[in-house]
Amino acid sequence: MEKGNLLVGQAGGCTAVINQSLVGIIETAKKSHAVEHVIGMRNGILGVLRETFFSLDTFDKKTLMLLKNTPSSALGSCRYKLKNKDYKAVLASLKKQNVHYLLLIGGNDTAQTCLQIAYYAREKGYPLSVVAVPKTIDNDLPCMDHTPGYGSAATFVACATQEAGKDTEAMKDVDPVKIIEVMGRNSGWLVAAAALGKRCEEDAPHLLYFPERPFDENRFLDDVKKVYDRIGYVVVVVSETIRDAQKSRIGAKKSGIIADLFGHQYVEGTAVKLCQLVEKKLKLRARFDKPGTIQRMSMNYISPTDRREAYMVGEEAVRLAVKGTSGIMVTLERILQKPYRCRVGSVKIEKIAGVEKYLPNYFINRKGNFVTKAFYDYALPLVGELPTFIRL
Amino acid sequence: MEKGNLLVGQAGGCTAVINQSLVGIIETAKKSHAVEHVIGMRNGILGVLRETFFSLDTFDKKTLMLLKNTPSSALGSCRYKLKNKDYKAVLASLKKQNVHYLLLIGGNDTAQTCLQIAYYAREKGYPLSVVAVPKTIDNDLPCMDHTPGYGSAATFVACATQEAGKDTEAMKDVDPVKIIEVMGRNSGWLVAAAALGKRCEEDAPHLLYFPERPFDENRFLDDVKKVYDRIGYVVVVVSETIRDAQKSRIGAKKSGIIADLFGHQYVEGTAVKLCQLVEKKLKLRARFDKPGTIQRMSMNYISPTDRREAYMVGEEAVRLAVKGTSGIMVTLERILQKPYRCRVGSVKIEKIAGVEKYLPNYFINRKGNFVTKAFYDYALPLVGELPTFIRL
Repeated sequence: MEKGNLLVGQAGGCTAVINQSLVGIIETAKKSHAVEHVIGMRNGILGVLRETFFSLDTFDKKTLMLLKNTPSSALGSCRYKLKNKDYKAVLASLKKQNVHYLLLIGGNDTAQTCLQIAYYAREKGYPLSVVAVPKTIDNDLPCMDHTPGYGSAATFVACATQEAGKDTEAMKDVDPVKIIEVMGRNSGWLVAAAALGKRCEEDAPHLLYFPERPFDENRFLDDVKKVYDRIGYVVVVVSETIRDAQKSRIGAKKSGIIADLFGHQYVEGTAVKLCQLVEKKLKLRARFDKPGTIQRMSMNYISPTDRREAYMVGEEAVRLAVKGTSGIMVTLERILQKPYRCRVGSVKIEKIAGVEKYLPNYFINRKGNFVTKAFYDYALPLVGELPTFIRL
Repeated sequence: MEKGNLLVGQAGGCTAVINQSLVGIIETAKKSHAVEHVIGMRNGILGVLRETFFSLDTFDKKTLMLLKNTPSSALGSCRYKLKNKDYKAVLASLKKQNVHYLLLIGGNDTAQTCLQIAYYAREKGYPLSVVAVPKTIDNDLPCMDHTPGYGSAATFVACATQEAGKDTEAMKDVDPVKIIEVMGRNSGWLVAAAALGKRCEEDAPHLLYFPERPFDENRFLDDVKKVYDRIGYVVVVVSETIRDAQKSRIGAKKSGIIADLFGHQYVEGTAVKLCQLVEKKLKLRARFDKPGTIQRMSMNYISPTDRREAYMVGEEAVRLAVKGTSGIMVTLERILQKPYRCRVGSVKIEKIAGVEKYLPNYFINRKGNFVTKAFYDYALPLVGELPTFIRL
């Protein structure tokens, strides 16, 4: 591989540890003889098209430490899908900057972008190593044990459920039903994480609803009623993307659906709809919490394992790129369950691009309203410390 | 005052540090010669009516430590308003338990309850010291500098705004407008707290809307447009109880309003409504975060000052009660601004009951859409450490 510049960008939804990967890349690239300069693109691939670049190799130690401890994508993000007419401009922009190593930190959509650029560069005979660095709180990337970003968002969701659960428990005479709406796009990994702090039957959460299972209003109401009758309050954690048997999003009004360029839909009313259902049909007061982007940005609930691994995938991406490897995504492989041990690996981007990994059947109980013991074994090593609360 | 039992309860919305006050009470009462036993009532004053009591003076150190670090009201809470027919039953229940010291940890509503019981006991010639212990994340109690519980919820709101703000900044090409809906009942103290981590003009939040000012849709849209035109993204923090000039709650559908026994209304749609407004009128994508009860329960964002002061008000309540003082609420008085020093005091409950303290005019800017420098001076000593993030 010839000596050249390394260009890095961040794309898609942000995480609390995505800048750890960025610093992993910067620090490793600075040590590499193959890399002349480390350059950042602003707002993902849009930065290449707009030619908004900035130097990343002049930061001092203090700046890098600050950067590591800043959530969200410090380079700016995007959800831009490359059009056919863009490739020429992308390649011209890369050539102009003498970029021979292109690293994009992102999820499925970013993998698609990397793949297309890698193909195009090869076709045009331009020497370019394209390496994708995994990042998503959704944990929905295939071919890896888990994704950087998931462990921290999972820690937030688990703790928030424990904490808001204590609130509902104390307020059961006032607002006995709590609906917590969490992210996760089309997969239920984050909903599942809500269960991680539960130690006994009375602890929250009591019910989980995953996008992997069709949502049935009557079954939901029946589930809520049963828990209420048994302990007097109910904490439900639900994905913002649950759908009914006809694949319609729960709480969606036609006017309320917005889709981005990759076709991902946003619905603002899932939890509101469920609260209304509970109040109307069960005559129980219900309120909802929707932590929204707070769940993926919370620095005080970061998982130390997640932080470390996010840095590791950044380091590995540079190592692979300067070896001349292209068209791959770095992965995380669990090599030991107890004590938990994880190492980095890699996979061809073809296997990742556009593929979503759902919560497998063996992590969801038969009724489709909670996780199994196997999920705890899988997920507990990935999250930070979960508190122990008292019940008098 | 004669020797007797001390009964303690918790009422109203929970906080992350309310159990600090409870432990302050238990530990101080155990040292007092006037107190025979420390008893807890379950679910506030309802516990007295239902005679659901439990012993609190047998806890070991480890249990008390766990209790301190558990958010929410460990004794259970309520929003029950005593009816005329209840007083007799309340007094009978207190006599039966040989209670001569009654301590209730709560806000305005609890103050009302304490006042009524103190009157009734005096009228019936039963020796009873009733002392109210302040608690509310809303910070809306008069006659005191601030309330225990506020500093921790304020820390959460400030940090969540900084963090979610970084998310919106990175995602400005996708979702440029973020609405964060926070609590605070009819006062804007928590909305104001969202500003505490802002260090420069570009930092979130950019706009705040308080229940103290009538909300005008056109002015709001104009404000949002201006910020967007200047920096390309907008983070708005808004109280869940904002009202228009006709005093109608924003986002309220008739069917969506529920009121509790004290007449407090809940509306589930404020942030949803504002997102719809922005998308329809400004053609900008808007999303919302509504941390809900998570904002008042988050143990990883506790303010150390708040934690300490919540314990102090509990201690002081016992000291005052065993001296025979009745019909008072403990207060917090700021005696020095720099370095911040605070001491406990007390005030007659008559001055608190049913009175709400709003954000004063000198803490709100002229346009009614942000706080003043004076608010920072007031609030910064009350919150925990606010992070410093980098902008590349």
